[in-house]
Amino acid sequence: MPRINQKSEVRSQRSAVRPPAFDLASYLETRTVAVNAAMDRFLPSEKAKPATIHRAMRYSLFAGGKRMRPALVLAAAEACGGHEADALPLACAVECIHTYSLVHDDLPAMDNDDFRRGKPTNHKVFGEGIAVLAGDALLTQAFEIAAQAKGWPRYSHRDLILEIAKASGSLQLIAGQVADLEGEGKKTSAAHLKYIHERKTSALLCCSARLGGMSANCSAAQLQALTDFGYQVGLAFQVIDDILDVTQTSEQLGKTAGKDTKAQKATYPSIIGLARSRKIAAELTAKAFAALKPFQGRAVALEALAEFLLKRDR
Amino acid sequence: MPRINQKSEVRSQRSAVRPPAFDLASYLETRTVAVNAAMDRFLPSEKAKPATIHRAMRYSLFAGGKRMRPALVLAAAEACGGHEADALPLACAVECIHTYSLVHDDLPAMDNDDFRRGKPTNHKVFGEGIAVLAGDALLTQAFEIAAQAKGWPRYSHRDLILEIAKASGSLQLIAGQVADLEGEGKKTSAAHLKYIHERKTSALLCCSARLGGMSANCSAAQLQALTDFGYQVGLAFQVIDDILDVTQTSEQLGKTAGKDTKAQKATYPSIIGLARSRKIAAELTAKAFAALKPFQGRAVALEALAEFLLKRDR
Repeated sequence: MPRINQKSEVRSQRSAVRPPAFDLASYLETRTVAVNAAMDRFLPSEKAKPATIHRAMRYSLFAGGKRMRPALVLAAAEACGGHEADALPLACAVECIHTYSLVHDDLPAMDNDDFRRGKPTNHKVFGEGIAVLAGDALLTQAFEIAAQAKGWPRYSHRDLILEIAKASGSLQLIAGQVADLEGEGKKTSAAHLKYIHERKTSALLCCSARLGGMSANCSAAQLQALTDFGYQVGLAFQVIDDILDVTQTSEQLGKTAGKDTKAQKATYPSIIGLARSRKIAAELTAKAFAALKPFQGRAVALEALAEFLLKRDR
Repeated sequence: MPRINQKSEVRSQRSAVRPPAFDLASYLETRTVAVNAAMDRFLPSEKAKPATIHRAMRYSLFAGGKRMRPALVLAAAEACGGHEADALPLACAVECIHTYSLVHDDLPAMDNDDFRRGKPTNHKVFGEGIAVLAGDALLTQAFEIAAQAKGWPRYSHRDLILEIAKASGSLQLIAGQVADLEGEGKKTSAAHLKYIHERKTSALLCCSARLGGMSANCSAAQLQALTDFGYQVGLAFQVIDDILDVTQTSEQLGKTAGKDTKAQKATYPSIIGLARSRKIAAELTAKAFAALKPFQGRAVALEALAEFLLKRDR
């Protein structure tokens, strides 16, 4: 969540380009409240036996994430004239997928991270065995929640499940994690780094935007626009992440800074330098904005989200 | 696909109540061939980038498992008059779930097993990081494959996905793993051990039988019969597993024997003794047979499977 002072900063910057009244901070706040309440309903309670696994699932799911993916789902649904209630299960599903991937990514056998979102990582609190199982459970839960979304003749449950499974599977999200893991300490080309980013980040952001459109029974043209938008925003998001990792402190980020450098991971700044990385992020965001043209101004929340992702400092 | 000679054999056997000549070995063989061929089609090839993850997924998936769960799916579908082609995706999906659970269960943070089905475990070959991701990918793949099954008005894709997600989720399969992990070295009651077995084993076997019926658009009464059958067979299966762990050698089992005792895990033999454990397994199987009565002799393969599970020595 953006901090209050940052909120007004974002607002003042926006007056030049687009309606000054769009308040992204309160938009994100209300959506986060709705998403959290829905996730609380969808997930077994902390008391459900065995309590450990439900405490572990909820620990990471409610650890104060920015809820960017659920916000993308909801904003995309709005842009297509959909209802929040129809999009919410899908918003929760992608957040479960995102959180599971973080829990497993933080494991000693992977990134070996002790902190995430300013709190000890799942395995530091619950142990490695439970952290593996909590990730598994969140991944499984995602499909259970998604199956409860509203289906349409054009976008059936089969389509929704395939959308999530493909974006999270061994050719996309997991492919990104594998390539990331295998790339540590190795010389990486800019093209291969893009391959990693497309899978590690773009896949699920793109999927989020598409699911929002699908929940609103969107047209084929709208779905294509959301696909392009999600893809570009996803790449931009990851380039920014790389930039923040080298320019911010752990305190500012709420997670370990400089970990990419330490792990000898290839990043945009390490391959093409900081200035060119910033330029690329700006270009990607411009492309993302261009992708929203078919919505003719009805995609204000998506535009604001893209701007926020580019200008964020944590 | 069943071979011609077997098909006619099965047809002729069906006239009697309990055909004495039912050839389970060739039944399992043909079903295994069909399931393996289908999984090979459903999964990305070993060459698909990144090759490591696809090699790791296929390594454990094609490590010579008994394919009991897929066989249950197919046999249940047959008992309800369904077509093998409609049941195959669900058979493959449950096998992916089963295999992922084994890959993660074998990790050092869990059971820390070096051998599975006579071969080094996934993490021993590919490393822990890839083993975690291979398990994740198999779990995700299960839903992608299941989404491609045929849906019916009575059993929609929503129902099929919910069936799998619930049986594999934090209240069932994963709950069993957690309770198993937490129970190590602790005194366990027979009731709690039953709770673990219901979740660790019965849940997915029960789900397999139900999915087979659902793929055949079965009646509510048939689904109930399959539910009872799967539940009882699942419990029997696990009791036998406990028994074999203390009575067989690693060579006979193709996996580490005596590991439950070594890990100070509660088992039926350790709590109620070997003789009573055998009696319970026999009783559970009798109940499983009784559950098949509504099929009036059309469930020969399911009966043979139950008998096989009780009489197996590995």
